[in-house]
Amino acid sequence: MKIAVLGTGPVGHALAGKLVSLGHEVTMGSREAGNPKGTAWAAQAGPGASAGSFAQAAAAAEIVVNATSGTVSLAALAEAGARNLSGKVLIDVSNPLDFSAGFPPSLTVCNTDSIAETIQRTYPQARVVKTLNTLSAPVMVDPGRLPGTHDVFVAGNHEDAKATVVGILQEFGWPPGHIRDLGGLDAARGMEMWLPLWLRIFLRQPEGKMFNIGIVSE
Amino acid sequence: MKIAVLGTGPVGHALAGKLVSLGHEVTMGSREAGNPKGTAWAAQAGPGASAGSFAQAAAAAEIVVNATSGTVSLAALAEAGARNLSGKVLIDVSNPLDFSAGFPPSLTVCNTDSIAETIQRTYPQARVVKTLNTLSAPVMVDPGRLPGTHDVFVAGNHEDAKATVVGILQEFGWPPGHIRDLGGLDAARGMEMWLPLWLRIFLRQPEGKMFNIGIVSE
Repeated sequence: MKIAVLGTGPVGHALAGKLVSLGHEVTMGSREAGNPKGTAWAAQAGPGASAGSFAQAAAAAEIVVNATSGTVSLAALAEAGARNLSGKVLIDVSNPLDFSAGFPPSLTVCNTDSIAETIQRTYPQARVVKTLNTLSAPVMVDPGRLPGTHDVFVAGNHEDAKATVVGILQEFGWPPGHIRDLGGLDAARGMEMWLPLWLRIFLRQPEGKMFNIGIVSE
Repeated sequence: MKIAVLGTGPVGHALAGKLVSLGHEVTMGSREAGNPKGTAWAAQAGPGASAGSFAQAAAAAEIVVNATSGTVSLAALAEAGARNLSGKVLIDVSNPLDFSAGFPPSLTVCNTDSIAETIQRTYPQARVVKTLNTLSAPVMVDPGRLPGTHDVFVAGNHEDAKATVVGILQEFGWPPGHIRDLGGLDAARGMEMWLPLWLRIFLRQPEGKMFNIGIVSE
């Protein structure tokens, strides 16, 4: 499929690289078409990889991935343009973490709203699916690197869009039984509000050791 | 030890019952000394069990457990009385869930504060430890009922108080490697903000099946 990955950070790189390796046509989008990170990525990522502005990436895509920081996601999507998002699956991987006051960060939106719901309200013609935001980038695209079973979450108001995203997660290596559909997009509140606990667990992890949570059930 | 369990709901019952079974002297505290739930519990819980007002329970105790709903915890602790909390380990198991607007509930405090920190600020002479709030009551006191390894968290500003609480968690059956000390009491924000995700997972669980999360690490 033709996929736009908006964002040139570690999450954007992990997702774009994995999608190219799976045979998708991927455009890494950034604020300026000539962004050096995007250009450098496209030059080494192999066939199917290209780079462009947010608008160029989104215009060419069937699926748009928001891999920008949550604090700038609305600005990035505005540059992508409502027309280029209309009717498309919009995978929101962002977290609205505000580190401006240091650590621990706060969330710019939470409790009775989420960045995912904000995006859906702003672009009602897009079909927003929240997923993967609960994980480190390397684990998102390679769940097998952790020993034992662990889980990824999906939320959204459009069942067909969620099915498309579940398909991509399975391509990434997520076992169907560990892709947890939490229901409507308001479940994104919990997925984003998990981050403060994730960060505290992260701080106590042995240096460089990736982790995730697995649901242990009776 | 002499332990006050403030609260007569499912969490209070689970904790008070387990603590009595382990040989502790437990007073279940409630708003009124003659509360039928407290009296009924004390009558059947066996030797070491008694019931009383919040103040009576806290006055007699070395350790006080706040097992009231987060929305009423400050009122309950005010009735317990600052003098009866001073110098004591105060185990906060509460979650500030507000269901007044229906489901999903919101949190009455979150993001840049927590109910645990609010309690610590209100009672600076108490030594507040946040724990067990991330779990269903039956799992709190019987971690072995779930198959496989899973985790419980601890946070607080007083190392000696945390050590006391870790000892009680081990008495409950929590393996030392799965009692995760997250650091200072500000980590309670993340532990409380986990609840919205917990609730969404709970809704998708098979009827009546308890669960928890386990940290899966490289």
